[in-house]
Amino acid sequence: MYRKELKVLDCTIRDGGLMNKWQFSKEFVKDVYTACVDAGIDYMEIGYISSEDQFSRDEFGAWKFCSEKDVREIVGENKTNTKISVLADIGRIKYTDIRPKKESVIDMFRVACYEYQIDKAIELAHHVMDKGYEATINLMAVSTVTDRRLDEVLVDVSKSRVKVFYLVDSFGSMYSEDIQHLMKKYQEALPGVTIGFHGHNNLQLAFANTIECIIQGANMLDATLLGMGRGAGNCTTELLVSFLKNPKYKLRPLLWAIEKHVRPLQKQIDWGYFMPYLIAGASNDHPKSALKWMDSDRKEEYVAFYDQMRESRQELE
Amino acid sequence: MYRKELKVLDCTIRDGGLMNKWQFSKEFVKDVYTACVDAGIDYMEIGYISSEDQFSRDEFGAWKFCSEKDVREIVGENKTNTKISVLADIGRIKYTDIRPKKESVIDMFRVACYEYQIDKAIELAHHVMDKGYEATINLMAVSTVTDRRLDEVLVDVSKSRVKVFYLVDSFGSMYSEDIQHLMKKYQEALPGVTIGFHGHNNLQLAFANTIECIIQGANMLDATLLGMGRGAGNCTTELLVSFLKNPKYKLRPLLWAIEKHVRPLQKQIDWGYFMPYLIAGASNDHPKSALKWMDSDRKEEYVAFYDQMRESRQELE
Repeated sequence: MYRKELKVLDCTIRDGGLMNKWQFSKEFVKDVYTACVDAGIDYMEIGYISSEDQFSRDEFGAWKFCSEKDVREIVGENKTNTKISVLADIGRIKYTDIRPKKESVIDMFRVACYEYQIDKAIELAHHVMDKGYEATINLMAVSTVTDRRLDEVLVDVSKSRVKVFYLVDSFGSMYSEDIQHLMKKYQEALPGVTIGFHGHNNLQLAFANTIECIIQGANMLDATLLGMGRGAGNCTTELLVSFLKNPKYKLRPLLWAIEKHVRPLQKQIDWGYFMPYLIAGASNDHPKSALKWMDSDRKEEYVAFYDQMRESRQELE
Repeated sequence: MYRKELKVLDCTIRDGGLMNKWQFSKEFVKDVYTACVDAGIDYMEIGYISSEDQFSRDEFGAWKFCSEKDVREIVGENKTNTKISVLADIGRIKYTDIRPKKESVIDMFRVACYEYQIDKAIELAHHVMDKGYEATINLMAVSTVTDRRLDEVLVDVSKSRVKVFYLVDSFGSMYSEDIQHLMKKYQEALPGVTIGFHGHNNLQLAFANTIECIIQGANMLDATLLGMGRGAGNCTTELLVSFLKNPKYKLRPLLWAIEKHVRPLQKQIDWGYFMPYLIAGASNDHPKSALKWMDSDRKEEYVAFYDQMRESRQELE
């Protein structure tokens, strides 16, 4: 697939950091940055941007905060073709902490929100755009939003100045028919807006769903090295780059970073295709129960987890 | 997806055995059988059927041979709804070794062949059909067969009495557009013939391609527990059962067998998504170079493998 509008965003540090509280060595982050630059990746998402009074640096690594100083230690003035992105959660960043773009090497803010936060998300996106940044809104957990409510959200977005809006499969529960349905809805409601996709791999469909989104017209694609990300992880950057035919993308630098850093880390941290994540994804559930199970000494007890999840569903009935 | 014609074939022992020379404990095979029966799996492929003078029992486990005695030790008279299947490679089974169906608990022979063996495959399929078995032909490595040659093969199959023909993604190199193209071709050439699909997971697309085949009309679907199979492995049975809406399929018995046997084995044997298999799949190459690399002490050297593969391609030019 070659389409010049297609952009790849590597969020290894940001989404992967959910599995190690962003406790990456400086060399790890620096090498992922170098790999992204050399591989022709369009955006590298280097972490969450959060106010320092919200979280402790004793618990979380630098990439939970993305201070200008820390980011510059990795990217310098970033005289490259790879832009730097950060993710902001609603309510975890103070507007006054955001400096004007001309004082920052960060290029893009992505605003993650649930459907009930869409007004706050648009406000924050407008705020960072007014300060000179690119902005996206990433609507999470859309697999639990009714179509009627989603239509309202899309109307709000269509009235905003936001030019990139993300389809996010937070629970890794979507099949190709879900992708087709939502891509159609997003594009019809948001003409002229670039649609992005961020998938999770609970059903081993993150890459396949990314391809389906490309076919349906999405032009911003999230991925991580070896799929490093919360729970089952994400579409892998190396698969996406192997698939895309734009000659600017190179696989070899990504393999270098995977070999040097990401694969060794994968031997210590269980992200990827594990039965509790499959069970959560197939049930369209938030991964939190599965993450807790995988963090316990019962992580290999798949039947017990299945029974527990089934019981908690029956309690709802 | 609910379609009553859909059949699931679990080939954990057969394809998985390629990774451990079929050296499974009897309890392993027995429990996989029990899980298949309890989960409503339509066929369990218990191994290759090969003549004993072709391979040594010193090197290979029982499921390289599938003697009637060994199969009966697992399934008894098999008074269940799960049929027993075996895979035959051309030239590795003597017709005289195949007993009439009424003396066997085996229900189906699957004949694996390359395109240049199609006449021999049809002959063997007819032979086992005449002895009372169900038969399929599984045309391997079709991603390297030209359309003109493939059309000839399909004409040969269309003139045969074979009623099940498999689309096989041997190299794990197919994208959804390849599936659509080949499914259309197979169905147009073979009206009234059931089309099956057997995928490999080099590009994390085995499950997605299986779904695409279902959408396109395939009704026999191969899968293995945790994807255990050669190299990157296969579509997983647990994902497929989670997707199919037929109430006869149950996930829980599969989780039991995975927890008890397959996951512990996965910690000893490297099947699944590893960079050498991705590199082979993305290049539409036979996995043998990647398998050899993964079996060496250089298995984590991804860049070196990539460079070696690229060099060997350039030598061709």
